[in-house]
Amino acid sequence: MDYVIGVDCGGTNTTAIAYNLDGTPIKTTVTGPANLMVDDSRALNNVRNALRKLLASVDGTCQAITVGLAGLRAYQFKERFRQQLNLPTENIQLINDAQLALIAKLHGQDGLVVIAGTGAIVIGTADQRQFSAGGWGHLLGDEGSGYHLSLLAVQQVTMEADDRQATAFGQALLAHLNLRSVFELIDHFYQWDKARVAKLAPFVLAQAEAGDPTAIGIVKKSAQGLATKIIQARRKGDWSDTDTVKIAVTGSVLEKNTYYRDILKQAVMAAGLPFTYLPITPTVSNAIAAVYDYQD
Amino acid sequence: MDYVIGVDCGGTNTTAIAYNLDGTPIKTTVTGPANLMVDDSRALNNVRNALRKLLASVDGTCQAITVGLAGLRAYQFKERFRQQLNLPTENIQLINDAQLALIAKLHGQDGLVVIAGTGAIVIGTADQRQFSAGGWGHLLGDEGSGYHLSLLAVQQVTMEADDRQATAFGQALLAHLNLRSVFELIDHFYQWDKARVAKLAPFVLAQAEAGDPTAIGIVKKSAQGLATKIIQARRKGDWSDTDTVKIAVTGSVLEKNTYYRDILKQAVMAAGLPFTYLPITPTVSNAIAAVYDYQD
Repeated sequence: MDYVIGVDCGGTNTTAIAYNLDGTPIKTTVTGPANLMVDDSRALNNVRNALRKLLASVDGTCQAITVGLAGLRAYQFKERFRQQLNLPTENIQLINDAQLALIAKLHGQDGLVVIAGTGAIVIGTADQRQFSAGGWGHLLGDEGSGYHLSLLAVQQVTMEADDRQATAFGQALLAHLNLRSVFELIDHFYQWDKARVAKLAPFVLAQAEAGDPTAIGIVKKSAQGLATKIIQARRKGDWSDTDTVKIAVTGSVLEKNTYYRDILKQAVMAAGLPFTYLPITPTVSNAIAAVYDYQD
Repeated sequence: MDYVIGVDCGGTNTTAIAYNLDGTPIKTTVTGPANLMVDDSRALNNVRNALRKLLASVDGTCQAITVGLAGLRAYQFKERFRQQLNLPTENIQLINDAQLALIAKLHGQDGLVVIAGTGAIVIGTADQRQFSAGGWGHLLGDEGSGYHLSLLAVQQVTMEADDRQATAFGQALLAHLNLRSVFELIDHFYQWDKARVAKLAPFVLAQAEAGDPTAIGIVKKSAQGLATKIIQARRKGDWSDTDTVKIAVTGSVLEKNTYYRDILKQAVMAAGLPFTYLPITPTVSNAIAAVYDYQD
């Protein structure tokens, strides 16, 4: 039996899945994290182990392997990495994790993928070209991400301290964190990593959904930033204003929150350009990209 | 002869100066950095060494010591630090470095001090009360600081990449750094510390002064943010709208750049409230605060 393998690497774990050529998953192997910018030899080990286990346990011939690796864009040693995988399969593609998501979510077709988790980026593909907007990281934007929503919420509390006007939202945020003052909040904030900061996002979204006007303002501002990135990515795709562009949304913030998705869709709609939203598929691994990639 | 000592501690070095009671400097000692949040035992050593050297080399009686320490606000062990200095002088005041600047620049009188270096904060004193606006650090604002000016400049380049509209300013920034693309810029940016980022500010200010419209927009936006903090601090001082409030500007970005000071003053003027600007005195150490402090 012929099969293909897709590997989705991330900061938490690496998921390698073998698929029939019709896209049915056969077997899955999970190993540890694989991010080239964090630790490339660990990434190599985890990807290699996942692939060797899978190749040893599936009968038949592996026709192709597609690996989506975080940090590949800026990585200098891509070819060496490929060689060091040292696998019996010739057809191995190393692509960026965002590209893997792009192929998986759009099934290899043209369109845009909006990813909003801790960070945010819009990636697109049109006529074999790939492009992106946003995704510049937490210091330079990441509009619409969990980090961005949380940052705006903490900035709100500092603004209220400077304005001497505490809002219900600012008070609720301090209470939620069991803190007494803006100074305590700041001291904590600067000790948190990005993922910890982003964990405030569900609180902000819940406050907005419950009708808090300050939280609604924050969510609309953040979503507006991401909507701008979507429109910019659409322009990079050179679609005409009458083309209906496919758009998939993914990442923890958007997948888990209908309310936030709706706010984002409204902000996008304001630009007056036609889009079709693909259904959310959080249970389908981006490793499925290997199947679309092979069919191409 | 009676004298007082002021100690100005910073991230680069610690300057301890002995003054006659009329404010004439007698002797200066410089040791290494002293920031409590970075390394408190190193800070203790450098402050103690500077003070012991000074006390041993000046004849007479030291009446008072005022030490301005970075990171004191959030520091838990202030009393232990004071004891471990273990000095023969009873009257030792430990205050924040920003408070030291406040006393030094306003000569102990009421008013506002605007500090803009790598970071930015507005501190004020009125009727024995001290207050501040801004100063929330590089992730949460620091409007008008060298870091903020630089951040807006790098964000401008990412925005241009998303908009597919390179400006002369964006091109000049890449050329200034000898980089070929926005991706190279981002990779560098995320490896820089705050001080390195802030080093772009003189370039941004020079481009603006030379008439580049994009750079002018960045400088005005950054200065507007700082002007807002000045107005907020003025409100915290509870002055009436007709009171003329004294204001001193300090920090490398403001002290070295007449052009930027003028832009800031214009932005403040738009609020229509009366201020008097004190002369810039970069050659007078904030250690002089010890003299005003003792005279009080």
